[in-house]
Amino acid sequence: MKHAADTLVKPSTSFVELVKDRLKEILSSQGSIKEILVYIQQTNGKMIRPTLVKLMFDLCGGEDQSVVLDVASGIELIHMASLIHDDIVDQSDTRRTFLTVQKRFGVSAAVLSGDYLFAKAFNLLAVHNLEQVMAVMTEVITQMCSGEIQQLLDPVVSEADYWNYIYQKTACLIEAACRVGALIAEVQDVRSIDLASKFGLALGYAYQLIDDLLDYSADQERIGKPIGNDFMRGIWTLPIIRGVDQGVITPNWREELSFAQARKLLDQHGIFVEIKKEVEFYVQQARTLLLAFPDKPARQHLLKLAEFIGRRSY
Amino acid sequence: MKHAADTLVKPSTSFVELVKDRLKEILSSQGSIKEILVYIQQTNGKMIRPTLVKLMFDLCGGEDQSVVLDVASGIELIHMASLIHDDIVDQSDTRRTFLTVQKRFGVSAAVLSGDYLFAKAFNLLAVHNLEQVMAVMTEVITQMCSGEIQQLLDPVVSEADYWNYIYQKTACLIEAACRVGALIAEVQDVRSIDLASKFGLALGYAYQLIDDLLDYSADQERIGKPIGNDFMRGIWTLPIIRGVDQGVITPNWREELSFAQARKLLDQHGIFVEIKKEVEFYVQQARTLLLAFPDKPARQHLLKLAEFIGRRSY
Repeated sequence: MKHAADTLVKPSTSFVELVKDRLKEILSSQGSIKEILVYIQQTNGKMIRPTLVKLMFDLCGGEDQSVVLDVASGIELIHMASLIHDDIVDQSDTRRTFLTVQKRFGVSAAVLSGDYLFAKAFNLLAVHNLEQVMAVMTEVITQMCSGEIQQLLDPVVSEADYWNYIYQKTACLIEAACRVGALIAEVQDVRSIDLASKFGLALGYAYQLIDDLLDYSADQERIGKPIGNDFMRGIWTLPIIRGVDQGVITPNWREELSFAQARKLLDQHGIFVEIKKEVEFYVQQARTLLLAFPDKPARQHLLKLAEFIGRRSY
Repeated sequence: MKHAADTLVKPSTSFVELVKDRLKEILSSQGSIKEILVYIQQTNGKMIRPTLVKLMFDLCGGEDQSVVLDVASGIELIHMASLIHDDIVDQSDTRRTFLTVQKRFGVSAAVLSGDYLFAKAFNLLAVHNLEQVMAVMTEVITQMCSGEIQQLLDPVVSEADYWNYIYQKTACLIEAACRVGALIAEVQDVRSIDLASKFGLALGYAYQLIDDLLDYSADQERIGKPIGNDFMRGIWTLPIIRGVDQGVITPNWREELSFAQARKLLDQHGIFVEIKKEVEFYVQQARTLLLAFPDKPARQHLLKLAEFIGRRSY
C-alpha cells in the first residue's frame, strides 16, 4: 500500500508536501490537544482529494496558488475529521496500520478532535471568502452524515440503497474535490465545472467499488489491513448484494456461510469479474470526460490517476 | 426552569419563534436522520445565544432581517451540535428533562447528527458570504474543542485553569454571539464591536459561574435536573477550588467528603456568597458596558437579560 500511495501522488508530490506543511501549520497548537493533532498527522493517507483539487484547478487554468493550497488542505481536513468520526461509528481499532484516534485516545477525544478539524477546515475556507466552495463542502458533510446515519439505523441490503450509500459515503466528497478545483480556478463556463464534477463522481464510484471488492479479493499483505471486514461485520456491499440477487449465495449468508465459503462462491460465479468490469466502466467514463479538457500536463496526471484507481483491484 | 426560560425570552419572543421556524426548515430532512432531527428540536433550550445576536444587532442599528435570522439560527445550531457532542464526552443521560441524543439514539448517531448540525450551521453562514462571522464562529469551535480536550486529558484543579476552561467552554460562544450581532449590523466603529464582545464575555462568565454554583445550591425541582453532578463526577469547579484554596475543604474531598458535607462546609464559610458577589461583578460590568450604546429598546432588553442571568442563582 505504501508503494501504491507513492505511485499515486508522484504527479504532484511537491504539492502534497505543501499540503502537509500547511496542515502542520494549521494544526500547530498548545495544550493537551497538541499530542492528538501530531498523531493524526502521522497517520496521513494517500492525499487523493487534495491532489484532485490541485490537478482540476490546473486543468481549468487556475492561477492563485494560495487559494488552491488552502482549499486542498481544507478538503483533506474534512476528510480526516470524517474518518476519525467514522472510526467511532464503526468501532474500528486500526486504520492504515495505525491505531485509530478513538482506540488510541478514547471516544471522547476522537469526537472533539474531529470537531476541531472540521472547524479548522471551515476557518481556512472562510479566509478566502469562497461562498460557493463553502456551500459545496457543507452540503457534502450533510450528505456523508445522512448516509452514515441511514446505514446505522436502516442498513443497506439492496443494490439501489448501495449506490445511494456509496455516493454519500465516498463519491460525493471526491466529486466535490473536483468541482471546487474547477470553481476556484474561476473558469467561466458552467460546462467545465459540470464535467469536472462528473469526472470526480465517476472516479468516486470506481474508488468505492474497488474498496468493497478489495475487502473480498485483496492480497492481505499488500493492502496493509485484514480483509473480510465487511463480511465479518455483516455489511451488505456489492459483492454480497450481487451474489444474493443472482442466487449464488443465500440471503442468510451471515448465519450460514464462512468468509472463505462466500468468497469462493462469489469468485466461482464470476461476481468479482463482473464488478471489476463495472469499475472499468466508471474509470473509462472518467477518462472520457477528461478528453473534453485541453491537453495539459494536469490532464495527463488525472488520466494516470484514474488508471491507477482502476488498477488497484487487480 | 420552564418558567425561567419564558421570562428570559420575553423581550423577543417573536424572534425566537422565527428562529425555531427557520431551524425547522433547515432541519427538515428525508430518511433515517429525520427522526433524530425532530427529536433534537423538541429538546430546544432557552435560545439565549440567538436572542443575544438579535438584540446586539438591533442595538447596533442593523437592518437586514434575513441575515440576522440566519446568523442567529447558525449560532444556535453550533450550540446544539456542541451540546450533543459534549453529552457523549460527559456520558450524560439527560439534558433539560429529555434523554440526550447519545442515550436515546446511541453514541454513533450522536456523533453523526452533531456533525450534521455543524455542517448545516456553516452552510447557513456561507450563503450570506460573511467571512468575518465564519472566522469568529470557527475560532469559537476550535476553542470549545481545545477546552474540552484539555479538561479530558488534564482536568482543571486550579483557579487559573478554571477561568481559562469556562472561557473556552461557555463564555467564548456568548462573546461570539454578541460580536457577530454587532458585525452583521455593519456598524462602522470598531469600538462598538469591541464593547459588544466585552458585554458578551462578561455575561458568559456570569452565566457559567452561576451554572457551577447552581450545581451546589439550586433548588433541585426548580432547576429541572439533579444537583451535585460536578461533585459526584469529581470535577473541580469554582466552589470546590475556592473551598480548597481557603482550607475550608480538604484537597482529598473526592475521597473524604459527601456532597452534603462539602455543601454545608462551603455554605458555612461563605464560599457561595463570595461567588455570588463575583457573579454580581460580571453582571454589573455587562450592564455598564451597555451604557455606552444608545438608549434603544434592545438596550433595555439586554439590561434585563443581564439582570435575569444575575438573578438565576438566588
